[in-house]
Amino acid sequence: MSKVKKILVDKGAEIPFYNRMDFCVGSGRMGLALHKEYYEQLKMVQEAIGFKYIRGHGLFCADMSLIQTYKDESGSQAVEYNFTYLDRVIDSYIDLGIRPFLELGFMPEHMASGEQTVFYWKANVTPPKDYKDWTDMVQAALRHLIDRYGRENVIQWPIEVWNEPNQPDFWKDADMDEYFRLYEHTALAVKRTDPGFIIGGPSISGRLDEACMRSFLEYVSYKKLPLDFISRHNYISHPPEKDGRYNYVKLSSIDDWFQPLDKTRELVDSFEEFRGMDIHVTEYNTSYVPDCPLHDTNLNAAYTAALLSRFGDKHASYAYWTFGDIFEERGVPYTPFYGGFGMVANNCIPKPTFWTFAFYKQLQGRCVHRSDEAIIIRRPEGSYRGILWNTDFGYEGRPLELEIQLPAEFAGYCLVTETVDEECCNPLKLWHDMGEPFNLTQAQTALLKRHSVPLIKSERISCSQSKIKISLMLKPNGVIYFDLSKTKMKSDRGYSYERILRGEIKGEG
Amino acid sequence: MSKVKKILVDKGAEIPFYNRMDFCVGSGRMGLALHKEYYEQLKMVQEAIGFKYIRGHGLFCADMSLIQTYKDESGSQAVEYNFTYLDRVIDSYIDLGIRPFLELGFMPEHMASGEQTVFYWKANVTPPKDYKDWTDMVQAALRHLIDRYGRENVIQWPIEVWNEPNQPDFWKDADMDEYFRLYEHTALAVKRTDPGFIIGGPSISGRLDEACMRSFLEYVSYKKLPLDFISRHNYISHPPEKDGRYNYVKLSSIDDWFQPLDKTRELVDSFEEFRGMDIHVTEYNTSYVPDCPLHDTNLNAAYTAALLSRFGDKHASYAYWTFGDIFEERGVPYTPFYGGFGMVANNCIPKPTFWTFAFYKQLQGRCVHRSDEAIIIRRPEGSYRGILWNTDFGYEGRPLELEIQLPAEFAGYCLVTETVDEECCNPLKLWHDMGEPFNLTQAQTALLKRHSVPLIKSERISCSQSKIKISLMLKPNGVIYFDLSKTKMKSDRGYSYERILRGEIKGEG
Amino acid sequence: MSKVKKILVDKGAEIPFYNRMDFCVGSGRMGLALHKEYYEQLKMVQEAIGFKYIRGHGLFCADMSLIQTYKDESGSQAVEYNFTYLDRVIDSYIDLGIRPFLELGFMPEHMASGEQTVFYWKANVTPPKDYKDWTDMVQAALRHLIDRYGRENVIQWPIEVWNEPNQPDFWKDADMDEYFRLYEHTALAVKRTDPGFIIGGPSISGRLDEACMRSFLEYVSYKKLPLDFISRHNYISHPPEKDGRYNYVKLSSIDDWFQPLDKTRELVDSFEEFRGMDIHVTEYNTSYVPDCPLHDTNLNAAYTAALLSRFGDKHASYAYWTFGDIFEERGVPYTPFYGGFGMVANNCIPKPTFWTFAFYKQLQGRCVHRSDEAIIIRRPEGSYRGILWNTDFGYEGRPLELEIQLPAEFAGYCLVTETVDEECCNPLKLWHDMGEPFNLTQAQTALLKRHSVPLIKSERISCSQSKIKISLMLKPNGVIYFDLSKTKMKSDRGYSYERILRGEIKGEG
Amino acid sequence: MSKVKKILVDKGAEIPFYNRMDFCVGSGRMGLALHKEYYEQLKMVQEAIGFKYIRGHGLFCADMSLIQTYKDESGSQAVEYNFTYLDRVIDSYIDLGIRPFLELGFMPEHMASGEQTVFYWKANVTPPKDYKDWTDMVQAALRHLIDRYGRENVIQWPIEVWNEPNQPDFWKDADMDEYFRLYEHTALAVKRTDPGFIIGGPSISGRLDEACMRSFLEYVSYKKLPLDFISRHNYISHPPEKDGRYNYVKLSSIDDWFQPLDKTRELVDSFEEFRGMDIHVTEYNTSYVPDCPLHDTNLNAAYTAALLSRFGDKHASYAYWTFGDIFEERGVPYTPFYGGFGMVANNCIPKPTFWTFAFYKQLQGRCVHRSDEAIIIRRPEGSYRGILWNTDFGYEGRPLELEIQLPAEFAGYCLVTETVDEECCNPLKLWHDMGEPFNLTQAQTALLKRHSVPLIKSERISCSQSKIKISLMLKPNGVIYFDLSKTKMKSDRGYSYERILRGEIKGEG
Repeated sequence: MSKVKKILVDKGAEIPFYNRMDFCVGSGRMGLALHKEYYEQLKMVQEAIGFKYIRGHGLFCADMSLIQTYKDESGSQAVEYNFTYLDRVIDSYIDLGIRPFLELGFMPEHMASGEQTVFYWKANVTPPKDYKDWTDMVQAALRHLIDRYGRENVIQWPIEVWNEPNQPDFWKDADMDEYFRLYEHTALAVKRTDPGFIIGGPSISGRLDEACMRSFLEYVSYKKLPLDFISRHNYISHPPEKDGRYNYVKLSSIDDWFQPLDKTRELVDSFEEFRGMDIHVTEYNTSYVPDCPLHDTNLNAAYTAALLSRFGDKHASYAYWTFGDIFEERGVPYTPFYGGFGMVANNCIPKPTFWTFAFYKQLQGRCVHRSDEAIIIRRPEGSYRGILWNTDFGYEGRPLELEIQLPAEFAGYCLVTETVDEECCNPLKLWHDMGEPFNLTQAQTALLKRHSVPLIKSERISCSQSKIKISLMLKPNGVIYFDLSKTKMKSDRGYSYERILRGEIKGEG
Repeated sequence: MSKVKKILVDKGAEIPFYNRMDFCVGSGRMGLALHKEYYEQLKMVQEAIGFKYIRGHGLFCADMSLIQTYKDESGSQAVEYNFTYLDRVIDSYIDLGIRPFLELGFMPEHMASGEQTVFYWKANVTPPKDYKDWTDMVQAALRHLIDRYGRENVIQWPIEVWNEPNQPDFWKDADMDEYFRLYEHTALAVKRTDPGFIIGGPSISGRLDEACMRSFLEYVSYKKLPLDFISRHNYISHPPEKDGRYNYVKLSSIDDWFQPLDKTRELVDSFEEFRGMDIHVTEYNTSYVPDCPLHDTNLNAAYTAALLSRFGDKHASYAYWTFGDIFEERGVPYTPFYGGFGMVANNCIPKPTFWTFAFYKQLQGRCVHRSDEAIIIRRPEGSYRGILWNTDFGYEGRPLELEIQLPAEFAGYCLVTETVDEECCNPLKLWHDMGEPFNLTQAQTALLKRHSVPLIKSERISCSQSKIKISLMLKPNGVIYFDLSKTKMKSDRGYSYERILRGEIKGEG
Repeated sequence: MSKVKKILVDKGAEIPFYNRMDFCVGSGRMGLALHKEYYEQLKMVQEAIGFKYIRGHGLFCADMSLIQTYKDESGSQAVEYNFTYLDRVIDSYIDLGIRPFLELGFMPEHMASGEQTVFYWKANVTPPKDYKDWTDMVQAALRHLIDRYGRENVIQWPIEVWNEPNQPDFWKDADMDEYFRLYEHTALAVKRTDPGFIIGGPSISGRLDEACMRSFLEYVSYKKLPLDFISRHNYISHPPEKDGRYNYVKLSSIDDWFQPLDKTRELVDSFEEFRGMDIHVTEYNTSYVPDCPLHDTNLNAAYTAALLSRFGDKHASYAYWTFGDIFEERGVPYTPFYGGFGMVANNCIPKPTFWTFAFYKQLQGRCVHRSDEAIIIRRPEGSYRGILWNTDFGYEGRPLELEIQLPAEFAGYCLVTETVDEECCNPLKLWHDMGEPFNLTQAQTALLKRHSVPLIKSERISCSQSKIKISLMLKPNGVIYFDLSKTKMKSDRGYSYERILRGEIKGEG
Repeated sequence: MSKVKKILVDKGAEIPFYNRMDFCVGSGRMGLALHKEYYEQLKMVQEAIGFKYIRGHGLFCADMSLIQTYKDESGSQAVEYNFTYLDRVIDSYIDLGIRPFLELGFMPEHMASGEQTVFYWKANVTPPKDYKDWTDMVQAALRHLIDRYGRENVIQWPIEVWNEPNQPDFWKDADMDEYFRLYEHTALAVKRTDPGFIIGGPSISGRLDEACMRSFLEYVSYKKLPLDFISRHNYISHPPEKDGRYNYVKLSSIDDWFQPLDKTRELVDSFEEFRGMDIHVTEYNTSYVPDCPLHDTNLNAAYTAALLSRFGDKHASYAYWTFGDIFEERGVPYTPFYGGFGMVANNCIPKPTFWTFAFYKQLQGRCVHRSDEAIIIRRPEGSYRGILWNTDFGYEGRPLELEIQLPAEFAGYCLVTETVDEECCNPLKLWHDMGEPFNLTQAQTALLKRHSVPLIKSERISCSQSKIKISLMLKPNGVIYFDLSKTKMKSDRGYSYERILRGEIKGEG
């Protein structure tokens, strides 16, 4: 039994909707940006979606090789900078039309005050022994970027201080006072380098987020520190259950999902000096674990469609964590569908969620409808575009039929739908049916790619009484993008589509 | 109401099936091979299908510029050859992994005995004033090809004398005696150039084909002329009805379609010296008119699937006329879907029939089933591949359900189906729904291309009692390709597809 | 014995120089723009040089298939338009970042008043029987372009009426009164279509140019016709001597070359209403024959370097005729170096003149020196760029040494020279040495391409007393581009170039 | 003052010469093969040179992630394999037409008996705690490769046990007895996996090489172990002198260079059971330090040309260490010309030595001359190809003129020379003149690439008395490749190269 809902759009409707889904996207650690597969996945994403900024960890981690020590002639330890890999990474970003959202972290070993690390790749998460060493490095890196890429470009790259300092995994003892010191030293050093830089924090996530945010804002306010934007993360799901290498999570309701974000908005606005300040959600996804098969599903695509329809209301941006599956926080994945965060699976296979983003990218125009299951915009030339999703998330979902009525401005329209659902675009299932191969052959990769595309259909709509009426059926966990464009049928001399259909009956020879 | 048919394959079944669909393909006139769009369409075709030879008209026509006249010092007319374009065309063929099936024709104006022409591009179809001039030119061209491409290559390129001399449009008065003279002079000259060349004819089509073929064979036999293969064309449909620029045809039954070909086989075999000789069907399609919308339909794809299952039984090859829609016999087309012969529409949009060929290319192995609606082969490693088509051709067609039972050699298989039917892969309909635009925008072209792909689905099949049982439903005019491959499910540590599906119900936060 | 000249540039020097070499370039007839080889040559040119507009003949000629006639139901002749090829051509131009400079011509056969044609490809050059038919066609084409490419784009494409009407070859009897009628009808129709269009003429060349231009201007003035720019051609060389297929010409002096252009400028400025109006030289080259080996030589490159240094003084643009060697006015060429007009020989081999244009493209900045053999500009950041050429044109030329002194703004510069001369970059000689092969093998093409590049050398210049002193030697018919950029030597820790050079003597093991 | 030498080749000369330069090439550690820049450099190398095998360290090192440990349900440590990166690397090799020469090493940390590491990337070089663990891993990897790439392919990939065990840096205490144990366990395990595998060692280099090789052979002989080939390295130069980050070395004489290799050949042949066995020199270069500017020079190219002419005499292959400069043994390089081992500098700039290899690749045919400064071969069709180098290596070198006389088989030849010397193809100098920039701009990279190509010249040679006489001048540290091909001059009708040169004098207009 399918559910049925009606959507009725009035002439002149104008609904607030802030589509900022393409401002920023997350990435595996910066050193992985040297990889060919990383480049190719990002290329796919940029061609179909086109983000403006990219943010990942590890700018100062070992494999970027940015800061080095050596013994000088006198035998004492000296420091020097190596920008070879940083430039190679940024060059490839620019080549792909994307720019860095700079996260300053983690701690180079020789200047670290402790030995605590995070991740398979062992990022040191302790404060510096001497803040001077840290700010010298930050300034050296920023000056180098200005030299190479030009001040007018670099000052547009937002700078964020550290990552999730309220999590003991990411900052020793989650010592917020120490973080405030880090922020203070860093923000002041950044602005000394060039007052035009845009600086923000505190990049917190989960655990005591409200308290941590409040004390951060109070500290900044009291000390009158530079602060150009607020950043935080949002991961709202039940705690994952682990089995072997994998994590299984339950999703929260969409409303629950937005609660912490709404509170942050309120909190920030409660400070007079921060009211209305940009809040960048510099990470989010449906789970916070990079080995969670949920990310590879159609459910994830539908759920994300719901999130994107509301995300811009109170926040300046929201960076899906991450664009692709080149990601090693828990080590190198064993299979192509390992539940990574990415929109793109390894071997450049787009996951269903990839299409959710590609669809949202098309929604530029005046919003005329927004509800729990749909968003529709009108383009200046009079066409409509919309995204629909089945809100009955999960495996017991029922089909959802949406009956949509829109004001017609032309006599005829062409309706094109692009459908992504468990039947027509479900690479996870195809891979499973193949026997869950760990290592894809070329033929398997090619098949998975050819399968992982929306199903496109079209229909001619004739309007009566200035109304367009369409009815679209969403399978469980399905997402549909539609485009309703004006068409004027003008057939060539003697061309008759009806005759083509009618006339081709079988004859006698 | 759908029809149901059962297909039962016994263990060890071995059915004769000669899959020679990739031997040769037809092309618009040779001069068009200089076009960028031609190259790109051929590239698509070669990548997905990969033909060995390509045959088109116009080797000696004006735009190839091969033979030129000038006044020499004494003021008398002299002849010289210009191989610039010929080489450019053949180079591009070789670059795409295809080689010419050389059709010798039509008549250069300065050596023609009359003024009759055919086509928008005005090919002269009259005999030469002097056969010596003609054979000099043929020999010069062949010698040049040997010089440039090497004897060992060039002698593998079949040579066919003229095109459809039994049609008054293509040979003045369809004068067969004159054709026999042309054949005689040409064949002897070719063999004088190099006895290794492969020469054939008479390239007839329709109209009195049996009589013409018989007299040709008698002539060759009587005169003991060289003859390495027989060639003919096959276009079997009701006479087209014209409306404006377009032609509408009715198809014959499949059995009717093969009648003339069968007769030619019998006739050839009735000559002792020609018994078993290769017959190349150097042209065929569902109609003989290049402005027939039928060619763009799913019906065409299903009908062609039926043809290809039987075509190799008695013939060495059969060249679909043509690979692409760069073709000007009736002038430059006005729209991207003008009913051209091609598997590919202009702007590199694959038509449904493109996929029929791409599917047949996969059928390399032992045939285990062949019927009016299906063909199935077994691969050496034990997988099965098949093509199914709905034989209830035309607009009133009913769905056809095929229940297939195959001998199982493994416990589990992965069934992958690729479906091309009027719902999921029908660029003609999408273009029609767009309003039949004459000139596509980039966005329209991109949409049409994204739509024009098979719908891919998968399923895991568990076998019991050494039987695989699958049931596939064909929509009217639908074609399905399937692949049944052995799979061994080996899940990674902790990975459970069932749990992914089951577990992701919505929770409370 | 080489000649020596000194060039002395004072601080603050500012010399007038208008570098408009990249505004427009000529092309073989529009129908050839469908060819793959044409596209690839244009791609090379656009990547290295980058022109804004492209102009060629044949918009209305048969192979573009733009206007077609048919019998309508009543049996009378009707007209319809086919924009398939026009769109394909313009799409490929836009794809390559170039736009059409629209030349309206020649006459479609069915509306022509006579049978006179020009070129191997038989363009009809007679006036229309009925001007209404002609202007209907012009308007239909322009309206179509606006529909497809947008008004804001299309009104920036200049429109020129016909080609060289003062030459009897190109306009029946060179009847200028008839041309004025053509211009009047056309210009008015164009402006009726959209007053934003830019219209010009008379596109004359050679023969009585002054008288024809004067009477054209008088006519336009008297009739108050629209006129947005003046156009003419310039081909100044001794009459060619023909031998077999080829033409040999002698060049005029550079001063003689500019005389007709200067006179046109004066003449135009003598009309009050046309004073200062843009004059587009819509064609020029060193000869007016498309089979003149001169075009393939280094002499041509040096001579063109001299022309480009002065060309912008009085004219808005000057379109080298032509960018590439896909060109069939006298038929299809027999060899890759047939003396075609192009900067690029067939098979995408750049000729020496290609580099003259690529070098001039770099000259963006304040001119500080211009003389008969050199032009030098200063870039905003303080570097210098210049082009030098040996003015002792021809086979008995002597080397020319140029001693250049420039004001230094930094302590050290890096001098990079790119040299194109008969020794280091002379594909014509290499092809000749190969035995003048008519049809290149892949290996020969590759060798010719690898050879046909400038020889690049570098040198560090230390400045004393704020002077840069360099001395460059030009071989006969040589062209040198130089770049003098500030360098600050900063060696890495322990890196010593001197030690590398010094230390690597051979040892004992 | 230039030196002059004469080279006289007699008719029928046939000189032994084994050109095996393309069998194998060295590479930075395997994990770096994931990098985009690595792929692009290898692509360049494969397109211009085309090696069959590639060998690098690090198959079992951390960043390949091949072997992993985890706690199983019972809480005890278990081992599992992750072939994701291995497959990605090998796939990219195969994509580039190259296959792995498998070096088994180094030691995964969890199975190592000690903590000693080598390189910036910390490869553990201690024996395994338990040889069973090691051989299990080797077998697992080989079995996986067979599964994925097919037995018929994988058994052609040579397998070498460890790297330089006679160097204490690479094997703890250079304990050869322990190495023999490693070899024994490994070789037996490999052959148990598949007796078709090709196994070899001992991969020694320098230090006590003769003694180590002898004891290895004795051990293998005594134990009757499998051994399919011998491997060693050859680095013969004076000890480098270090300054800052860089090493400066003196080269040995060419004769000294070959001494250790000759001795190894003798030694191997002195064992009856190993006589004539293939010796693969799996590493060599002009120095053994990866930060030695010598590698970037023209001297290196000339010296390598001398080596390659003799290398095949006694050895089956010799793998230049390394193809490119993506290499991190001493950390990430600071500049693009850091003295890396590669033929290609970072940013895909070919070094002079790249061309030495590209030239040698052309030498396929019968050798007719080989001397200290030249090698010449005759191709089956009668052309000659040769490589010349200036043996007066180093900075005080004099020009060398070579007068070559060859037997002529045709009346005329085309001589094409490709020159690489310090003037025409010296990217190191151009980079130095630019100020030794650490980070290249796009424009700098493009300029360096355009400069780093051979200078190509041509000449027509007429032969008299069946002799070809040519004279070529080598600048210090210069290398010249020449090709002498038969040409038959056949000019087109009316085409005269002499007239082109002669006739283009300046006229009056």
